[in-house]
Amino acid sequence: MDRAPIDFWFDFISPFGYVASLRIDDIAARHGREVRWHPILIGVTVLKVMGLRPLMSTPLKGDYIAREFERYCRKHGLRLARSIRDPLMDPLPVQRAFAWLIEHASEHALPFARAALHAHWHDGVALDVEAAIHAAGSAAGVPHETMREATSDPRASPLLRAEVEGAIARGVFGSPYFIIDGEPFFGADKLEEIDAWLRSGGW
Amino acid sequence: MDRAPIDFWFDFISPFGYVASLRIDDIAARHGREVRWHPILIGVTVLKVMGLRPLMSTPLKGDYIAREFERYCRKHGLRLARSIRDPLMDPLPVQRAFAWLIEHASEHALPFARAALHAHWHDGVALDVEAAIHAAGSAAGVPHETMREATSDPRASPLLRAEVEGAIARGVFGSPYFIIDGEPFFGADKLEEIDAWLRSGGW
Repeated sequence: MDRAPIDFWFDFISPFGYVASLRIDDIAARHGREVRWHPILIGVTVLKVMGLRPLMSTPLKGDYIAREFERYCRKHGLRLARSIRDPLMDPLPVQRAFAWLIEHASEHALPFARAALHAHWHDGVALDVEAAIHAAGSAAGVPHETMREATSDPRASPLLRAEVEGAIARGVFGSPYFIIDGEPFFGADKLEEIDAWLRSGGW
Repeated sequence: MDRAPIDFWFDFISPFGYVASLRIDDIAARHGREVRWHPILIGVTVLKVMGLRPLMSTPLKGDYIAREFERYCRKHGLRLARSIRDPLMDPLPVQRAFAWLIEHASEHALPFARAALHAHWHDGVALDVEAAIHAAGSAAGVPHETMREATSDPRASPLLRAEVEGAIARGVFGSPYFIIDGEPFFGADKLEEIDAWLRSGGW
């Protein structure tokens, strides 16, 4: 692991962020890279910074994206309890807990994020209630006391805000978003290109 | 050519539409398919129907898309006189001529579109003046009298409008956009997936 890690941003409410999370670590490892996972809030970037509508309520594009996601899932053999067409949950509680773990118990951050994404998309669990977030922590082997702090410490909110502001300052606006040696890649359908980029050293 | 043709929509002002136009016919031919080229006006779909901002003036995304396009061009060895960061031309004159040719001189429509795209993106020519449109017609071997009609017949405008309305009715919102046996694909970075889809018969 002598080369710089890959930075990967995702939002728990982003279906393409979820499916990318299932593959990016393996792709990176194949090329001797680690992946640093980061939270992003697409509600902030898309609505406030970019001034756009929510993707799924954008005429024409919402329908298209749903079909594209379902095609992606068929191709990769993913059977999810949650549909891309389901109403969004509030991502703040789980993103705050994730940001807290990154800062205060970093060894637990990634297992927690994986378990929470799995609970939300694969199992269909809404993560906007504390019990569901604690259950994801348990599934990931995070000590209960640590999860309790992650969901109750008022410092979690400014930690998340700092993460999101830092991401925006680097140009990050969506989920999944990757920066590799300064080069940005947006979207789950960039994973093949990322693989080729890492193999060849870029172009 | 016993299978249904692929429908392909593009706007002359769309850089990703241009680069997709360079590859879609070869990909289709490899799988025994023809391609039907259609005009779309992304100014209408993006701004009016979808209610979004112009892509290149969307904060964060504009910068990202420019980098993605330049990376695409490096990968595919494209050296273009026009940059994605250049101001847009008015696409209506050339799209109207294209729509007229599709209806009244269909054998010339595709050669004209290819020559016009090449003039605009490869050579950096603005196609919002009649002389430039006629020059693209000449380069494509379209008789001068035919081009004169294509750029002066008042029926060109309603023909284009009908094409765009028909496209929107089918869900088309961007450039490039493809429909293959009822399945929609958006973006130049879907060409590899389209190739795989045609090879395998879909999934």
